[in-house]
Amino acid sequence: MQLSKPYLLFLGDATSFLDCKTGAGLRDWCPFDVIGQHALPAGTVDLGIPALSLAESAARGARSLVIGVAPVGGAIPPGWWPTLFAALEAGLDIVSGMHMRLGEVPGLAPSAARLGRKLFDVRHADRRFAAGTGKKRMGRRVLTVGMDCAIGKKYTALALAKALTERGIEASFRATGQTGIMISGRGVAIDAVVADFIAGAAEWLSPDNKPDHWDVVEGQGSLFHPAYAGVTLGLVHGTQPDALVLCHDPRRQTIDDFPHCPLPTLEEAMRQYLTAAKVTNRHSRFIGVSLDTSRLADPERLELQSRLEAQLNLPVIDPMRDGAARLAAAIERDFPRAA
Amino acid sequence: MQLSKPYLLFLGDATSFLDCKTGAGLRDWCPFDVIGQHALPAGTVDLGIPALSLAESAARGARSLVIGVAPVGGAIPPGWWPTLFAALEAGLDIVSGMHMRLGEVPGLAPSAARLGRKLFDVRHADRRFAAGTGKKRMGRRVLTVGMDCAIGKKYTALALAKALTERGIEASFRATGQTGIMISGRGVAIDAVVADFIAGAAEWLSPDNKPDHWDVVEGQGSLFHPAYAGVTLGLVHGTQPDALVLCHDPRRQTIDDFPHCPLPTLEEAMRQYLTAAKVTNRHSRFIGVSLDTSRLADPERLELQSRLEAQLNLPVIDPMRDGAARLAAAIERDFPRAA
Repeated sequence: MQLSKPYLLFLGDATSFLDCKTGAGLRDWCPFDVIGQHALPAGTVDLGIPALSLAESAARGARSLVIGVAPVGGAIPPGWWPTLFAALEAGLDIVSGMHMRLGEVPGLAPSAARLGRKLFDVRHADRRFAAGTGKKRMGRRVLTVGMDCAIGKKYTALALAKALTERGIEASFRATGQTGIMISGRGVAIDAVVADFIAGAAEWLSPDNKPDHWDVVEGQGSLFHPAYAGVTLGLVHGTQPDALVLCHDPRRQTIDDFPHCPLPTLEEAMRQYLTAAKVTNRHSRFIGVSLDTSRLADPERLELQSRLEAQLNLPVIDPMRDGAARLAAAIERDFPRAA
Repeated sequence: MQLSKPYLLFLGDATSFLDCKTGAGLRDWCPFDVIGQHALPAGTVDLGIPALSLAESAARGARSLVIGVAPVGGAIPPGWWPTLFAALEAGLDIVSGMHMRLGEVPGLAPSAARLGRKLFDVRHADRRFAAGTGKKRMGRRVLTVGMDCAIGKKYTALALAKALTERGIEASFRATGQTGIMISGRGVAIDAVVADFIAGAAEWLSPDNKPDHWDVVEGQGSLFHPAYAGVTLGLVHGTQPDALVLCHDPRRQTIDDFPHCPLPTLEEAMRQYLTAAKVTNRHSRFIGVSLDTSRLADPERLELQSRLEAQLNLPVIDPMRDGAARLAAAIERDFPRAA
């Protein structure tokens, strides 16, 4: 899956900023790839970027219309369909992370074929993968793993890839979820592959590379999640991570929306992730912890971070506030370059 | 997926008994559901059951032609196609565990539709499942888990379901793989579902039941397998097993075909399976160990079993030699009936 940038973000008729989380993520993480936003007359959300017509965006070089809004249910409402056809006519590909496929919009696929445009359903994995091999690959890999879903694994990986690059270490962000794929323009929606091929898809995603190159792989789910842990484990095994970063939200005591599923301690979580990782990489180790402290004021936040640093003997950062320079430094210290 | 029995086993042009493992499993585990075998002229394998024409088998009540042979590659060779069409004409459904779908045989699906017959691809999961909930269900569940693939999980589950029934305990074998599905006539090919829904499919497979009813769930893969552990973990979480049986082949030191992946000790394996199981059932425990001792002579076998029993403080059986009565007894002792 290789998407064409730059993007025009489609916000539909959204009136809730939260529904436009995908669009906001793209604006924040690949601002130079986002030309503007486009909404229907009923839409009220403003991402603070230029509001452009389809023709204007095409004239400014846009290559894809990206659906940056996710209404509950995952369907593509009929009210959006005329915009999708018009986007194809304006010369744009369409990128969607909805459950409903673009090809299910009546007539859209034939239109795209006629116009030579492409439709990308990043939530679906149409490619077939081989089973995992467990064989060691060249290059280095770091994986963000979580206490739960939606706890900063993607943001941490993006921040770490950036921090490594800034430090002069070659690094590639490897996307495993739909927003990550839109940000980087490629990747695998790992939770959408057939169960037998989770690890194989993860191996494919972070292939052989130069000895000092780092793949920064976006984690998914959690080993402690009653619904999604299988995805997480296959991703850990296939990535064969040299380094792990544990992502946590200190407010969470249980899996989100699963009050009957308590979270383990951070130490126990790290122990279980390491046990899993060592099936395919016996030298795997944690190099840091990433917290979502967005609801904490500074004195409380700094106290928590320093307490956890002492307790775990690892750097503890919030990537949104601190960046990931300290994680990159830990990688540089713990994994000396061959050269 | 609900298959129609009894079966006629199709052995194609097989000349290797090993290729007919599926057919042999059906003959052994559901002999009353198997009417006979049917081979092409070039085929030389004999399962020791009546060789019948399609018409003869239909006259004796056969409802399905089951492909009981698996050539390397998983394709359905064109040499078999005339037999498949003839089976539909004779009034039989067709059941296949091949990678290639029956619907990919040109013209077969329209023929089936015209004749009112069904095509079942038990390796594929066309049904959609919900995500797992982690919520406790009524009834009891026991899951066979393995040190590796192909290590007796299906046979152990079948033997245990039989032994429980013989003891007067209501029990259902729940199939998660293709041969298991053919044996029981229903089930879910758990490794073929979309990764996000492994646990959800396992929950669906062993639904709410009477308080003293036992689902005996066929395990898949291994937590220590670099390719398939994600499937295993999702199955553990979704099953929420009250009881676990560890399956092992004492000759194996590494994952089969993965010499770079050593197996942990049995104690360590049990510890890791229990840690996983306790995410959704904190009372989960092991009730026995099942060994494949087919290559061991009796003195050596008995010595091994009694040594492991002392070491693990659990009954250790070989279901092919001993049956599973001692596992059923352990269940009856450890889980007193409500009535």
